[in-house]
Amino acid sequence: MTGAEALLETSRRLGIELCFANPGTTEMPLVAALDRVGLRAVLGLFEGVCTGAADGYARMAERPAATLLHLGPGFANGLANLHNARRAGSPVLNWIGDHASWHLAVDAPLTSDIRALAGTVGWVRSAENAARLARDGADAIAAALGPPGGVASLIIPVDAQWDDAPGPLPLATARRNRASASADALERTLCALRSPGCGLLLGGHALRGSALHAAAQIRSHTGCRVWTETFAARHERGAGLPDFPRLPYFPEQARETLLGVAELVLVGTRNPVAFFAYPNQPSRLAPEPCAITTLCGAHDDAAASLEALAHELGAPREVAVADRPRAAVASGPLDSGTLGRTLAALQPEGAIVVDEAATSGLAWAAHASAAPPHTVLALTGGAIGQGLPCAVGAALARPGQRVIAFQADGSGLYTLQALWTMAREALDVTVVICANRAYRILQVELARAGIAEPGPKARSLTQLGPPPVDWVAAARAFGVPGTSVRSAEELAQALQRSFAAAGPSLVEAILAG
Amino acid sequence: MTGAEALLETSRRLGIELCFANPGTTEMPLVAALDRVGLRAVLGLFEGVCTGAADGYARMAERPAATLLHLGPGFANGLANLHNARRAGSPVLNWIGDHASWHLAVDAPLTSDIRALAGTVGWVRSAENAARLARDGADAIAAALGPPGGVASLIIPVDAQWDDAPGPLPLATARRNRASASADALERTLCALRSPGCGLLLGGHALRGSALHAAAQIRSHTGCRVWTETFAARHERGAGLPDFPRLPYFPEQARETLLGVAELVLVGTRNPVAFFAYPNQPSRLAPEPCAITTLCGAHDDAAASLEALAHELGAPREVAVADRPRAAVASGPLDSGTLGRTLAALQPEGAIVVDEAATSGLAWAAHASAAPPHTVLALTGGAIGQGLPCAVGAALARPGQRVIAFQADGSGLYTLQALWTMAREALDVTVVICANRAYRILQVELARAGIAEPGPKARSLTQLGPPPVDWVAAARAFGVPGTSVRSAEELAQALQRSFAAAGPSLVEAILAG
Repeated sequence: MTGAEALLETSRRLGIELCFANPGTTEMPLVAALDRVGLRAVLGLFEGVCTGAADGYARMAERPAATLLHLGPGFANGLANLHNARRAGSPVLNWIGDHASWHLAVDAPLTSDIRALAGTVGWVRSAENAARLARDGADAIAAALGPPGGVASLIIPVDAQWDDAPGPLPLATARRNRASASADALERTLCALRSPGCGLLLGGHALRGSALHAAAQIRSHTGCRVWTETFAARHERGAGLPDFPRLPYFPEQARETLLGVAELVLVGTRNPVAFFAYPNQPSRLAPEPCAITTLCGAHDDAAASLEALAHELGAPREVAVADRPRAAVASGPLDSGTLGRTLAALQPEGAIVVDEAATSGLAWAAHASAAPPHTVLALTGGAIGQGLPCAVGAALARPGQRVIAFQADGSGLYTLQALWTMAREALDVTVVICANRAYRILQVELARAGIAEPGPKARSLTQLGPPPVDWVAAARAFGVPGTSVRSAEELAQALQRSFAAAGPSLVEAILAG
Repeated sequence: MTGAEALLETSRRLGIELCFANPGTTEMPLVAALDRVGLRAVLGLFEGVCTGAADGYARMAERPAATLLHLGPGFANGLANLHNARRAGSPVLNWIGDHASWHLAVDAPLTSDIRALAGTVGWVRSAENAARLARDGADAIAAALGPPGGVASLIIPVDAQWDDAPGPLPLATARRNRASASADALERTLCALRSPGCGLLLGGHALRGSALHAAAQIRSHTGCRVWTETFAARHERGAGLPDFPRLPYFPEQARETLLGVAELVLVGTRNPVAFFAYPNQPSRLAPEPCAITTLCGAHDDAAASLEALAHELGAPREVAVADRPRAAVASGPLDSGTLGRTLAALQPEGAIVVDEAATSGLAWAAHASAAPPHTVLALTGGAIGQGLPCAVGAALARPGQRVIAFQADGSGLYTLQALWTMAREALDVTVVICANRAYRILQVELARAGIAEPGPKARSLTQLGPPPVDWVAAARAFGVPGTSVRSAEELAQALQRSFAAAGPSLVEAILAG
């Protein structure tokens, strides 16, 4: 048995079922071992597809998939989506092939400092030899599962892959471990909730259904205010689920939202900070002074923590969730409002919506709280190009569930190669491109920076045309059927067709203005 | 004047004319300053396009372009092509926006260790404030220009961009500095050339026309053998130019080529090593024993060094270059042979050929030595996805010259967004896609690893279909006219049309078998 086989078999026993791969010469023994071990491999045409898919898979499956990447440059191509995975707290396992151990000293063309790169997103180890490779692989999986868990990268010289190894480790499936809130944290939170100016900020695992219900009980019992974090790794929403306002993206709006809060309790999230800094504005969003109490962190079991809290409070077990009327299909020209309303009106129950719609997605988010129950996966780390790959991974984690990639056009272009993997794997993904043909957020930010009339050079850097990108042609290039729509009625038809059909399809929603 | 304006104006004075940009919120003051300073900005839809273009520009212009990138994830997206630029010895200047200095401590979503990333490809500095920013920018340009020169990254907190600065530095255009061989190196080389088993390996700057002529004079005078390095940043070839055999890619072939060499003189290149290691094979390609003498390194002025050497030897000033009959257009089904012959038969004089054709490019390289004089830019660092972006940069450095992006399909898919920049900037680029619909090199490497019959999983990771990628649709998506051909006759027609027309076009050459 080779080191590669020992690694893959050990990883399979520990629960790794899937590998998002873009291998090269230094990964050939691992590639050859896939068939012998029986591990599923999904090819991405670019490494950012593989890492974003592993993030999406982890968010929905609650266990890591592996990526298989080619030395430093291959890993670098996947880094942006690993950054998002790190911010999402997703367990992701990277297998990175490297030169044979004796070959590193001669600085061959593809040699680079992989450890320095991988260290920026989490746990990293360089395997030393085939004999220890299975153990290294198990350690990497343990690091990914945590606590706290996250991105774990194992650098594997090719000789450690091809050399003989003693065999796989006798291990059984490992699961993600989430710690519940400590008695001390519970006590401090109970104390904070006695303050009239107490607010809860929910994030991470606190955005699952049972946690949301517990938060509603606590709010009903104490009168505290409750918000959800701005960009959540996984947020369960829709009819029958308590819905809390989202902390706004722009810091001045977020600060206004939190005005008057004297005690802020963090549940599955961090002390909120501005996404970007602005002149003479503080980085923190909570008012000064405001006491900060952490019930539990992003990697912890927030649902159990909130349930324990509700129990301690003696909160009512059942709190009625107000009926919210579902939006109707809009009519007329498409803008982000009619687009969002129409999508919210038609999205099927149980949909997984990967929301990288950026400025085009706000109206949908408002309407979707009344849509049938669904799960939203947001861009957690701000590294755009996460949506389409994340949809690939979510679809593979949840076969039979409709995935909707709700996608800004500018962001989607970073990793459009994901469309090919959707086609190859026949994934039930509906891609909705919000084609405003601009980096709209940058136009907003230029205005916020006081540049009311940007010059032609500045303006050209925020415009995605001419030429306009033809997303239907891009979809066809990668084997995905596509259609372009300009009205809400056309959009509704296209969405209904897509939701009814197996496999992927793309709808390019051309937005007016 | 803002720090951003002081930086851009100082850089403009130092000779920076062009910025390949993919900015975000933390770069808005630099974006706004572009118009005020009058620096040309070219938008890439993905950062790998920007960095690859900066590499291509540097190879042809002999001075750096700037890139404008968005924090750590934006930089990471550009890293693979910076790795190639590093291996090419290209001067590239990166301006990387970062959070405001006071915002770093709160670990906002887009915060990451940019220094760790940038340090893997060259010089890096974090700007401290607006007052020093122009000085930091000048230092970065000096680092890029060298000697030795290369990739230089300046991390610029947004407050250093928007704060007031004293003004630009009073500097004038700086040029790339290349050192000539030392008297000592010349002496050692003269000594080595007295050995009957002496060979010269040419690379880097030694592959310019005048250097090649000097090498031919030296060969004629001493009888030494001469080779060129396998992957050259810039190689001038074609009718009238001395042509030397290229060191083969596979190490056993390279070792066989160098068999019997007792003294190997390195001119503008490094002691050759295998691209990848194989079991029980050494990393070095020169035979043991073989004395290694370095006349000059990759960053040095190899042409001047070789001319000095020829002069010291008293070599004849003129050596006739043998007439090589130009290949004729092929006929029949397309394979890498008929494709290469047809392209070599038709490519216009002065063409810049960006060769990322991988396994499909060997026949062309053989035939092209008899084509009219042209320049070849190769994949220097092995990080695939370099070709299309490099073609963008080369075209911007040399308006009026035809650029041919000779592109393997698998590699081209990493950074296909470059097609859009070709269309937007109306660049005279002919993209020739070698569509064998496989990662052919990996199929070869699987076989070399002894896996004669790969299993279905392994095989699927080397196949680019189903579904096949439709490159004509991909081109249309990005505003580039395209056509698909299956015979040498069709290819010849498509090439002639493309060479005759201004602006970009794409030819998808579907290869049989």
